Amino acid sequence: MRAVRKVRKGGGAELAEVPTPEPGEGEVLVRVHAASICGTDLHIYDWNEWASGRIPELPMTFGHEVAGVVEAIGPEVHHVQPGAFVAAETHVACGVCSTCRTGRAHICENLRILGVDTDGAFAEYVLIPAQNAWVVGRGIDPDVASIMEPFGNAVHATFGTEGGEDLATNPVVVIGCGPIGLFAVGIARAAGAWKVMAIEPNAYRRDLAAKMGADLLLDPGERDPVEAVLEATEGTGAEVVLEMSGNAKAVDQGTRMLARGGRMSLLGLPDQPVTLDLSDQVIFKEARLLGITGREMFRTWQQTTTLLSTGRVNVNPVITHRFDLERFAEAFEVLASGRSGKVILFPGGS
Amino acid sequence: MRAVRKVRKGGGAELAEVPTPEPGEGEVLVRVHAASICGTDLHIYDWNEWASGRIPELPMTFGHEVAGVVEAIGPEVHHVQPGAFVAAETHVACGVCSTCRTGRAHICENLRILGVDTDGAFAEYVLIPAQNAWVVGRGIDPDVASIMEPFGNAVHATFGTEGGEDLATNPVVVIGCGPIGLFAVGIARAAGAWKVMAIEPNAYRRDLAAKMGADLLLDPGERDPVEAVLEATEGTGAEVVLEMSGNAKAVDQGTRMLARGGRMSLLGLPDQPVTLDLSDQVIFKEARLLGITGREMFRTWQQTTTLLSTGRVNVNPVITHRFDLERFAEAFEVLASGRSGKVILFPGGS
Amino acid sequence: MRAVRKVRKGGGAELAEVPTPEPGEGEVLVRVHAASICGTDLHIYDWNEWASGRIPELPMTFGHEVAGVVEAIGPEVHHVQPGAFVAAETHVACGVCSTCRTGRAHICENLRILGVDTDGAFAEYVLIPAQNAWVVGRGIDPDVASIMEPFGNAVHATFGTEGGEDLATNPVVVIGCGPIGLFAVGIARAAGAWKVMAIEPNAYRRDLAAKMGADLLLDPGERDPVEAVLEATEGTGAEVVLEMSGNAKAVDQGTRMLARGGRMSLLGLPDQPVTLDLSDQVIFKEARLLGITGREMFRTWQQTTTLLSTGRVNVNPVITHRFDLERFAEAFEVLASGRSGKVILFPGGS
Amino acid sequence: MRAVRKVRKGGGAELAEVPTPEPGEGEVLVRVHAASICGTDLHIYDWNEWASGRIPELPMTFGHEVAGVVEAIGPEVHHVQPGAFVAAETHVACGVCSTCRTGRAHICENLRILGVDTDGAFAEYVLIPAQNAWVVGRGIDPDVASIMEPFGNAVHATFGTEGGEDLATNPVVVIGCGPIGLFAVGIARAAGAWKVMAIEPNAYRRDLAAKMGADLLLDPGERDPVEAVLEATEGTGAEVVLEMSGNAKAVDQGTRMLARGGRMSLLGLPDQPVTLDLSDQVIFKEARLLGITGREMFRTWQQTTTLLSTGRVNVNPVITHRFDLERFAEAFEVLASGRSGKVILFPGGS
Repeated sequence: MRAVRKVRKGGGAELAEVPTPEPGEGEVLVRVHAASICGTDLHIYDWNEWASGRIPELPMTFGHEVAGVVEAIGPEVHHVQPGAFVAAETHVACGVCSTCRTGRAHICENLRILGVDTDGAFAEYVLIPAQNAWVVGRGIDPDVASIMEPFGNAVHATFGTEGGEDLATNPVVVIGCGPIGLFAVGIARAAGAWKVMAIEPNAYRRDLAAKMGADLLLDPGERDPVEAVLEATEGTGAEVVLEMSGNAKAVDQGTRMLARGGRMSLLGLPDQPVTLDLSDQVIFKEARLLGITGREMFRTWQQTTTLLSTGRVNVNPVITHRFDLERFAEAFEVLASGRSGKVILFPGGS
Repeated sequence: MRAVRKVRKGGGAELAEVPTPEPGEGEVLVRVHAASICGTDLHIYDWNEWASGRIPELPMTFGHEVAGVVEAIGPEVHHVQPGAFVAAETHVACGVCSTCRTGRAHICENLRILGVDTDGAFAEYVLIPAQNAWVVGRGIDPDVASIMEPFGNAVHATFGTEGGEDLATNPVVVIGCGPIGLFAVGIARAAGAWKVMAIEPNAYRRDLAAKMGADLLLDPGERDPVEAVLEATEGTGAEVVLEMSGNAKAVDQGTRMLARGGRMSLLGLPDQPVTLDLSDQVIFKEARLLGITGREMFRTWQQTTTLLSTGRVNVNPVITHRFDLERFAEAFEVLASGRSGKVILFPGGS
Repeated sequence: MRAVRKVRKGGGAELAEVPTPEPGEGEVLVRVHAASICGTDLHIYDWNEWASGRIPELPMTFGHEVAGVVEAIGPEVHHVQPGAFVAAETHVACGVCSTCRTGRAHICENLRILGVDTDGAFAEYVLIPAQNAWVVGRGIDPDVASIMEPFGNAVHATFGTEGGEDLATNPVVVIGCGPIGLFAVGIARAAGAWKVMAIEPNAYRRDLAAKMGADLLLDPGERDPVEAVLEATEGTGAEVVLEMSGNAKAVDQGTRMLARGGRMSLLGLPDQPVTLDLSDQVIFKEARLLGITGREMFRTWQQTTTLLSTGRVNVNPVITHRFDLERFAEAFEVLASGRSGKVILFPGGS
Repeated sequence: MRAVRKVRKGGGAELAEVPTPEPGEGEVLVRVHAASICGTDLHIYDWNEWASGRIPELPMTFGHEVAGVVEAIGPEVHHVQPGAFVAAETHVACGVCSTCRTGRAHICENLRILGVDTDGAFAEYVLIPAQNAWVVGRGIDPDVASIMEPFGNAVHATFGTEGGEDLATNPVVVIGCGPIGLFAVGIARAAGAWKVMAIEPNAYRRDLAAKMGADLLLDPGERDPVEAVLEATEGTGAEVVLEMSGNAKAVDQGTRMLARGGRMSLLGLPDQPVTLDLSDQVIFKEARLLGITGREMFRTWQQTTTLLSTGRVNVNPVITHRFDLERFAEAFEVLASGRSGKVILFPGGS
């Protein structure tokens, strides 16, 4: 089969012919319909510092946001049948550690990631654990099913680990309007937030945020976003801040625009330590900072299914580019350009 | 009346004779039985940077942890009667801002602090808003009722803004064993925590932590406390960390000893920005950092009353020194020495 | 001033000329702009069994859903000024009992109700405690501000005492489409519920439920509503049931249409004991039954303000009739007919 | 092997020799060390109405509270090894339904019960799904490990589905002091409850409740328990009521002794419909009634492990009788007598 492979250290990747894998115990073989590109994939493609320290061995096939048809199942697979159209949960949990056994498999102590620790989905076929296959419900366009994974990230960050009771009727800020931030704008709106404010320096992305329903667009290059949010909330600040940028300065600003008693979900991954004014911006305000990673298995997938299948959130504005798998280099280029939302690869043709 | 006054900028204070104040609208006059010394008072006494920037004007009487008898009531006071023995909630809330109107008066937008923004309790008499007078219940020794305020801080931090469902059966770390940390050790034990670990460089205070029920005492000068907590929890980390030191390095260490999905209450006030590894220690672990200040009015006071009046927590080991008000200079000295727990002043004689 | 008075036991009421009251300590005098009629008012008008046992003494002016302009303020009123346009919280709390002191004034142990325990609002003027006056925000039509009180009931029931994290993306049933049920339909939609199902035997009200955004209308006279809800949810049942009817049979049916782990808010007041199959419908399913009364002071009012002022919920379809105060008899008649939503009286002319 | 079998409809059981079963896919064979008797087993032994309608077919081996050594493992078992000492979670969940996939396997839509729907544990060997085998931690006496299952019931009921933040410092009532109620007394104490009140007509069991730490013992035959609880709480009522009796009258009384805003966990299974005064006892009080069944998999097992292994709860007073398996008839007799706590059978000799 054809696969986009990272063959050697350094930038770029190669389209290679490799053997189609066979499903082992508990695995299913998925014929890839669509695989979308994550920021993580761009890091691997560019072979940045994080990638060179994190990827266990080369060569490997990368890519992890994927949907497709189950082609074959391995031994010990009982509930997923060939022919099912599935999307992949990419956090591969051990199932037996303390966090797994207490219903928090997404923060498994022995977590492995599809397309990072294993061969991934930029290929005609991919192996995934049967446990990680989510049957895609009616009403969800197969062409966009691969984005259920990052959309789930946004769902989990928006509702937070506390459940999201602070969304309805409250002001919500989204910092960083990459695809996950854009999804979060739509999700916060669907959950009844009042006045969703999107902070993003890139004008192309601010346009997308507007299409996703943001009530207020803020360019941090033009105006101090802390001031702008405080003004828009009559000095109170935002009850909820969703930090999707991973930018250290933005994280600090996020604490400064939080209302007393407010909540900030931290999803963007800073690549350096972050310095915060804990006394004034967290302690005296009794703010809550919540780390967010992955998706709750599988409560988040049910929420994702409902939001997408009922049209409560329309993700079409975010899906800006589609390419045949062969044209992966163009796809990475457009992603890197910043003039894109979500970019999807189609091994069977776009 | 006699009062310990801060008369001029710089270190020290003076015992002065001042007029006994008269209660205004909504105020009660309390004859002080006991007033304990808070770390904040020591800052004012020493006139450190924080104090010089925060105290509105001099001269003023300081001190805010207080209990005593209501001597007189002002106009518009309906429910507190002369003769009642009360302790003071020291957060003076406006009652009309958005946070006050939604049941979170302790983070009032117009918050004023007794003994900081107003004349305080190191005196024979003090004025407090009737709303802030908590009638001390049966079973609480009047001599220790002035510590209900800092004890309430500890209660609020230990239970956290989420309610404390993570305490029972879980490992809990207390960082910093000043009086509030020491109280927290006892409260965590009373709430069913399993293995309460106390981190404190001062041997005198570690001894007090042992008396309050700590299962494990850790001297950070002797061994890396992160390693020690991980070892004591078989690599999992602590479900709950209570940060009472305000030390920037300790806050960072607190995140590193947190279990996946764990919660850190931040009560200690860092006097400088704090640098954290958010990616690895908060986001990937889905940790929750909760700012904590003051006490919930007055849910925390009810909890405090029960814990103290039923003997669930015995605070006697923490009360190490008692002085007549006149001997305030000695009291501040012993507090500054680090060889003390809680130090209490008695205007009527100790 | 003119007032609609209950002068004697038995059906009906009278328009009478009575002295305009003067505000006492902590009270404000409100010139009534609009007063809407509650089901409770109809009980008083009809003098049913409940009313005859509950109303302390006659004659009295009834009515409690009210908005108007503050005309005068009494002593000890500091924060509400004459000229303010306010709506009334009708639960008059003592402020000093245990539930009040712990932020739950709406279930005060010494609760008194405006227009039941005191003279009410079907009059040109009404006295309310300053504490109970909510300044109506911009963007809310004064003509409908009197419905903020029952709308708040609906907000509180829909979000529930747990915060409402179960609303977004989940199926919600509203049983009983009187005004509060109709508001709940709109609120559940605004909070992101998926498939809001309204159960109501009265065709007129089912029409209003459709206008408020119900996805599915169910006539219990035509088909078993339990079967219908289970079918619409593919056998799973509803995650949330909002019981607004007070009908004993409907409460039982509500438990039967709940999903495993589901939540039922009980707001409708049954006038008789209710028999439930706790084993199969509550215990084995781990359902939660939450009693709901009044509104959280004043969190619910903030939510109400946002939902109404931003247009997240449009209540206009529910406001079906407006009358001059003098025409109160017609108003009660149309309310009793069942062919109405909310009916509002205007002392100054409709 | 020897097994206690229900061979025919009607009272009693027989000790029979049957083939030792072989573990199938995903199953482990456990050599039974101890199997304790549940009230459900007594229903099966007596063949009451519930049992005759619920047990799918005869003959069958019953018993489900069990601990023992893994003797052999079937295919597809990867993480449980022969030689491990395990206790059994008795709720056999399907793993693929909606509730299972959202972390609530204990209320699985396709739930099967060990020893009810399958051959059980009153035998020398029993088969259990590997998924249901909980490795018993250090510090837990193997002789009492079979009671981890009912103890877990008590843990889940005491903490409730909301997490148990209402336990510490609050008054708690336990209605019905069978073994689960007795465990609950100890758990509530360990979680910091103030004043645990136990209601139980049987004097023998009240004595056990005292040994488990109850602060107040109430005999409902001697005094109205509602009055007694209200008196003991100075009229406020209990913040938490744990209903363990399944008695319809006691459930109603439970609502009447609840404080405003209180919570009642319903675990006892009424065998008939229950009639409640919802208006006055639930709605106006904003009480919460929570159905409770089974144990959260496996959060409850972790809590159970901690409580037992650290001695926070000492269950020895509840373990009143031990018998060799052969003497099962005596064991059932002593259980039926009411003069017993937990009764444990030992196939290898007691």
